Order: sequence, then C-alpha cells, then structure tokens
Amino acid sequence: MAEPHTVPRADDRADDTPALTPDLVRQVLEAGDAEAVRARLAPLHAADAADLLERIAPDERSAVLEALRGVLDPDILAELDETVRGEVVEQMAPQELAQAVARLDDDDAVEVVADLDEETRRDILARLPQADRLAVEQALTFEEDTVGRLMQRATVVVPAYWTVGETIDYLRADASLPDTFFDIFIVDPRHRPVGSLPLSRILRNRRPVGLAEIMDGEPVMLPVAMDQEEAAFLFRQQDLTSAPVVDESGRLAGVLTIDDVVDVIDEEHEDDILKLGGVYEDDLYHAAAATTAKRFPWLLVNLGTAVVASLVIAQFEATIEAIVALAVLMPIVASMGGNAGTQTLTVAVRALATRELSATNAMRIVVKEVLVGGFSGMLFAAIAAAVTLAWFGNWLLGAVIAAAMVVNLLVAGLSGVAIPLALDRMRIDPAIASSVVLTTVTDVVGFFAFLGLAAAVLL
Amino acid sequence: MAEPHTVPRADDRADDTPALTPDLVRQVLEAGDAEAVRARLAPLHAADAADLLERIAPDERSAVLEALRGVLDPDILAELDETVRGEVVEQMAPQELAQAVARLDDDDAVEVVADLDEETRRDILARLPQADRLAVEQALTFEEDTVGRLMQRATVVVPAYWTVGETIDYLRADASLPDTFFDIFIVDPRHRPVGSLPLSRILRNRRPVGLAEIMDGEPVMLPVAMDQEEAAFLFRQQDLTSAPVVDESGRLAGVLTIDDVVDVIDEEHEDDILKLGGVYEDDLYHAAAATTAKRFPWLLVNLGTAVVASLVIAQFEATIEAIVALAVLMPIVASMGGNAGTQTLTVAVRALATRELSATNAMRIVVKEVLVGGFSGMLFAAIAAAVTLAWFGNWLLGAVIAAAMVVNLLVAGLSGVAIPLALDRMRIDPAIASSVVLTTVTDVVGFFAFLGLAAAVLL
Repeated sequence: MAEPHTVPRADDRADDTPALTPDLVRQVLEAGDAEAVRARLAPLHAADAADLLERIAPDERSAVLEALRGVLDPDILAELDETVRGEVVEQMAPQELAQAVARLDDDDAVEVVADLDEETRRDILARLPQADRLAVEQALTFEEDTVGRLMQRATVVVPAYWTVGETIDYLRADASLPDTFFDIFIVDPRHRPVGSLPLSRILRNRRPVGLAEIMDGEPVMLPVAMDQEEAAFLFRQQDLTSAPVVDESGRLAGVLTIDDVVDVIDEEHEDDILKLGGVYEDDLYHAAAATTAKRFPWLLVNLGTAVVASLVIAQFEATIEAIVALAVLMPIVASMGGNAGTQTLTVAVRALATRELSATNAMRIVVKEVLVGGFSGMLFAAIAAAVTLAWFGNWLLGAVIAAAMVVNLLVAGLSGVAIPLALDRMRIDPAIASSVVLTTVTDVVGFFAFLGLAAAVLL
Repeated sequence: MAEPHTVPRADDRADDTPALTPDLVRQVLEAGDAEAVRARLAPLHAADAADLLERIAPDERSAVLEALRGVLDPDILAELDETVRGEVVEQMAPQELAQAVARLDDDDAVEVVADLDEETRRDILARLPQADRLAVEQALTFEEDTVGRLMQRATVVVPAYWTVGETIDYLRADASLPDTFFDIFIVDPRHRPVGSLPLSRILRNRRPVGLAEIMDGEPVMLPVAMDQEEAAFLFRQQDLTSAPVVDESGRLAGVLTIDDVVDVIDEEHEDDILKLGGVYEDDLYHAAAATTAKRFPWLLVNLGTAVVASLVIAQFEATIEAIVALAVLMPIVASMGGNAGTQTLTVAVRALATRELSATNAMRIVVKEVLVGGFSGMLFAAIAAAVTLAWFGNWLLGAVIAAAMVVNLLVAGLSGVAIPLALDRMRIDPAIASSVVLTTVTDVVGFFAFLGLAAAVLL
C-alpha cells in the first residue's frame, strides 16, 4: 500500500531534488548525454518541467530542448511563460511545433498559436489536421481576453427529454466526448442551453428519471464576447464550476470551466500588482535592454512629476536661503503625504477591482478616508512638531510643520480615493495611473503648504 | 424557450436594477414595509445580497436585518465581509444565529463560528445539533489558514475492489452523501486514500469495470496541517479540481475542492496587494478611527525613515546655503530612485510569491536588475542633466545630478531585488517590509550622492 506522501514545499523540491537542480542539468548536458536529460525530465509534471526550463540560463535551456527534440511533452509548451515560450518555439522545426500543437487540448493550442508571429502562425495552422485547424482558427476570431478565446469547444450536450439511463448509455458509447468534464448541458432543438446538470446528480438518480426533472434550469450563460474578468467575477460570485458559453444567436458554443477561470484570476492579480508598482507587464524573463525599454515610459512620467515638485520648491528659494532647516525638513511632509495617500489608494483600487466600491457607497468611503486623513494628520502633526522642536529648538518651525502635515494628510486621504474613482469614471485603469497622480498631488501640496506657511510665518 | 440572458456588468446591475439601489432600500424601509424588503432581497444570489448589505449605511443595514429576522438566508452570512458580518451577528439572537449556522455547509459554518468571540462561540456551539457541533469543533482544532480548517469533511469514499456498477448503486442508495462532488476517493481498509476517480470517468465506463483499473493512483495528498497557500500552489501547478486531505496517520480526513482554493487565491491576492501598499488588512468597512489606528504603525515607520533622510540632508546644510538650487533639485534624484526601485521590487515580490524567483536563478535576476538600473541610470542622467542645464545654465550642476542619478538607479536596481530576497531568506514577508527598506535606501543614497558630489565639485 502506498504510504501517504506528504508534499514538500515546492521551492524545496525545486532546489533540492536531484532531478531539478540546474547544476545537475549542466553536468548532464556537459556529458552530452541526451538520454539522461530525457530521463530526468520525464517524471516531472509539465508545470514543474516548465518552471525548470524558465529558471535555467538561456543556453542551458537551448541544450535541454535539443536533447528533447521530438519527445518534448506538448503540455510543457502550454505551461511556459510567454517570453520563454517564444524562445523555445523559435528553436523548434515547424513540423515538430505543429505536431506538439495538435496534441494539446484545444484551449491550450489556441494560446500557443495566438502568440506566434503572423507568418509562423499561418505555417503551423496549415500543418495541423483539419479539425484542429478549424477549431483554432475559429477561436482566434474572438478577441483576446474574451470568453470565446478561453472556452473549451468540446462539450457534452443532451436533449431535455432524455432520461438518466439514456444519458449514461450515451456517455459510455460515444468515444469522441472530452476526457474530463464536470457538468453536462441540456439544449433545446436549436442548440440553445436550457439547463445544466452536475455529474454527481446524474450518478445519484435512477435510470428512468427524466433530465428535465433534475436539471438546474436557467443556467448563467456567458456570451462569447464577454470579457474574461467579467466571467471570473461571475464564477466567484455565484460559486460556479462551469458555465455554458453562447454565440450571438444564443446557441451553445462551448463551456468555461473553473480551472480556466483560476488562470484568469492569476492574470488579473498579476496585472493589478504590477501596474500599481509601475510595471506594464511581467518582465522577469525579459533581457535587461528590453526590460529597460518597457519600464522607461513610467519613469519618464515620474521624472515629469518630480520636476513639477521642484518647480514648487523653486518658488521658495529665497525662503530656503534664509532658513536652510526648511530644506532639511521639507521631504518629511511630502513623503508622509505620499505614504498615507498610497494606503488609501491601495484599498480603493482593490475595492474598485472587486466591485466593493461603486457609485452607491463612494461618497461614504470618501468621507471616511478624509476623516482618516484628518486623524492621522493630527497624530503626525504632534509627532513631527515634537521632533522639530527637539532638533531645531524652534517652536514656530514646529507649528509650521504640524499645520502642513494636517493639510497634506487631509489632501492625501481625499486624493487617495477620489483619484481612482475619477480615473475609473473616465475609463482609465486606476491601477496604472492612480499612484503617479497621487504622488504629484501630495508632493506639490506637501512642499507648497510647508514652504508657503514658513514664508508667511517665519520670515 | 428561455432566451439566452446575457449577463450585464455586475456594477451596472448593482447600481441600476431597482431591487438593489440603496435609495429603494431606504424608501422601502421608511414605509416600514418589512414584507417588501424581504420580497426584494429574495430573488438575489446570496453573494449579491451580501454585497448590497455591505454597501448600504450601517443604520440601513440594521433596519434591513430587522425586516429579515427569522428569514435571513444563512448563505448571506457566509458571503459577508468579516467586519460587516461581525455587526450583523451582534444583532442576531443566539438561537437565530445557531439555526443559521446549522443550515450552512460545514466549511462555511466553521468560518462563521471561528470569527465569533469566545463567549458567543461557546453559546452557539452548545445550541447546534450534536453532529454539526462535533464537525465544527473538530475543524476548529486545526490552525487558521490550514487545509484542515478549509476542507469539506463530507467525502465519497469506496473500496478499490468495487466495480463501476456497485459504485453507481451505492451513490444512488445513500441519501447521506454530499449534494455536489467532483471526484470520489478510493481508500484501503485502513481508510488511507489509494486513488481518485473523476465522476466523468465513472460515467464513461461500463458497470462490470473494476475501479482499480480506471482510478488515478497515487493521488496528491494534502496533510491537514498544510498551509492553505501551499495547497493553492499545488492546485494551480497540477491543475487539480479536488484533492484528498489526510490526517497524521494517513487516513482520509476530508477533501479540498477548487472552489475553496479560489477563495484562498483571492485572499492571497488581497494580502499581497494591500501589504505592498502598506495596509495590514482590508479596512474598507472599518470605521475611520479603527482604520486610522490600524494604519498608524506603518506611517510611523515611514516617518522614521523620512527623518533618517532628513539627517542626511542636514549634513549638507552649508552646501545648500551656498547653492540653494540643490534644495530645488535634490528630490528628483531621490524620487527617481524610489520609483525605479519599486518597479524592480514589485516584479521580485511577485516572482517570490509565484516561486518563479528562488535560489536557483536569484543571481541571474540580480545581475539583470543591476544592468537595468545602469541602463535607466544613464538614460535619466542624460535627461536630468539636460533639464538642469536648461533651467540653471550650470553644466557642472548638470554633471552632478547625472552622476548621482546613475549611482542611485544602480543602487535601486540592486536593492529592488536584493531586499525582498534577503527578507524572504529571513522569513519576513517581503510584501510588507520591502518597500519601506527600499525607499530608505534610495532616499539616503539619493540625497547623499547628490549633495555629497555637489559639495565636492561645486564648492
């Protein structure tokens, strides 16, 4: 009997198991032993093998692929990061690539083919068996990131007048059905879905029971053109495991399953987090020059906002010349505004993404965040004033920094929620644009309030 | 025949459909018409009803709950945000709450009970039917965020010597089985899992076929104590839809299904994104004072780092007094370092979370990010020098800002990846601590390089 094998942490596995260390890969490669490379990769799950290929250096990757020529598990292709897959695909002969694509599930095949350049794509499509080619071509007619692109086209459909027994007989007899599925769909004579039925319910009812009696009627249907994030929201909100996808005329076109939705959720996650950090796309596997080029525009915009902040400071050159302590203290007010505003902004951007923040409760959240800004402002005004008094022994300077702190943290609270709301209203992605607008505001207000008050009070 | 109802954007629904506007809720409430409140909430999915309750003001929420007394759908409780659920639960009589909990699925019941304060929890547990009480109590013996807490205890298990026919007969006969399930598990006489079987495969084989012939052997087993994020990683990596959970002696204790894992993925997402923004927990529904208190420590730490940066500036008071343009320009170098470093840091923190960054490839990624810092540094050195020359007509000042920019962006690239790696090595969550360490470094280096060079070259 198999002992229960508790699963080790995946990063331990990746670094400790002999089959996986890049050093071993290197040794095996140096020995020129292609058979050994194959033997070591064979027992790995495709996703783990893909991770290994991503982690090793490009020249090692190329050598491993050479050893795997003709025996590469096509699922590894589907699991690879886009950038790395691009390199891998370039190394494969067209016939080899076409054979790999033909062996993939239709949704994975679409993903791999969609990323190819125009010419290679045509070449590969021409080499596919006709049924596969038509399926991929049809999928490619849907926009990227739509349900139509993501769905599985192979579905199990039966008419409503069938019984449990007839359904089971059909499932046993038809070899062309997909290998694994969670629900079957009941369609009317025009192939429009009228119900869905989880497999467990088929198994729990007796053969003479009619499907119409036990099916879930009025299934949630997803139009082929629906945005995939929209679909992911529905899956989470209604705890769906699969949902029928329908074309413009309401006919069943395919099925979206929760395992595809998990990938969408991960993509969304990646998108949100990278954009908030000022990165447009995952560039971990890009070369340094390509990465620099991709990140440049965001930094350029930020340089612009930094120069705007400097222009504000420049208005107070005379004040700073008179009291140089102002130059020492001024970054404190600006940076506290930026940090407090970022806290508010993070909560607001996330709430917009999860749809917890909408026109309905926007005003209440804005009021709350302004209050939070006010409270924090008073707390940090007191602390900053105390630090300033201790440092420079000047209570008037302490009063100035305190007042500027209150002003800037109030503005930060307001801007932290108002900016993402406004961008969302303007249909600009709040995740990418909010933080640069926010820090411009908190820098400008921070420097202006502090230096302006100082000029008025201290000179 | 039902027309395919395309699903509208959920936020449109939330704001446009009469049943859902807070204004309507208010009108209905003012009319004191409890029946109307019930009628309007009844057709909503529990998740949508929960969203509505979260969005309306606390006093409206309280009135709606009053109208729903005794008829509240227990699933709404399970769907509510923790903070809001706390308020709702306080308003319910113990007997009412116990009845609601008893009607929930066991994993949802555990979630609701786990959040109660000690006294209420004991009270509610005592009022539950014995079987439910034991199930909840047993689940609560597992740590929060472990697989044991998250799993469904109700599973479908059969011995390996059964046939497809015997299995189907058993599923039809036993009324105590769970309502919906995706896989059945095959156990040995000591109740240890030896295989799993997707329902579609049972349906696609004939009655005399033995389960041992068609089952997937050596299922991935999750120990009850496994961290839920670990389990989520395995589900994604191996495309699992469900996995058996085993206790210390290897016996089947329950099953983890992909819909539970989707919630874990969402939690992880929330955690990462909020922590990177300096927020410890989702505080959207907290009151302003509670939110201020929760966010205070992070801002205090940041005030500390801002003061450190000011101490650096203070070393150069004489220099600034002599050339006040330095005060105008110095935030530019610091802020560009912060922004470039944040880009690198975001990619690194995410790659650590997805395990794409590990000891195996850390050195290659560090080298790459230093290169990116160097390239960006040179680009922005040129731009900043040009701006400075145009503004102040001083080419030596331009040369100083250019040199400082190169230094700070190199340091930013290095720190952006080295800081999260080091924190991860020290078992400190890189998402929460990286950005404050990074901005301290880029501020200190930015001010020091710029003012230090200026002092050396320009005076």
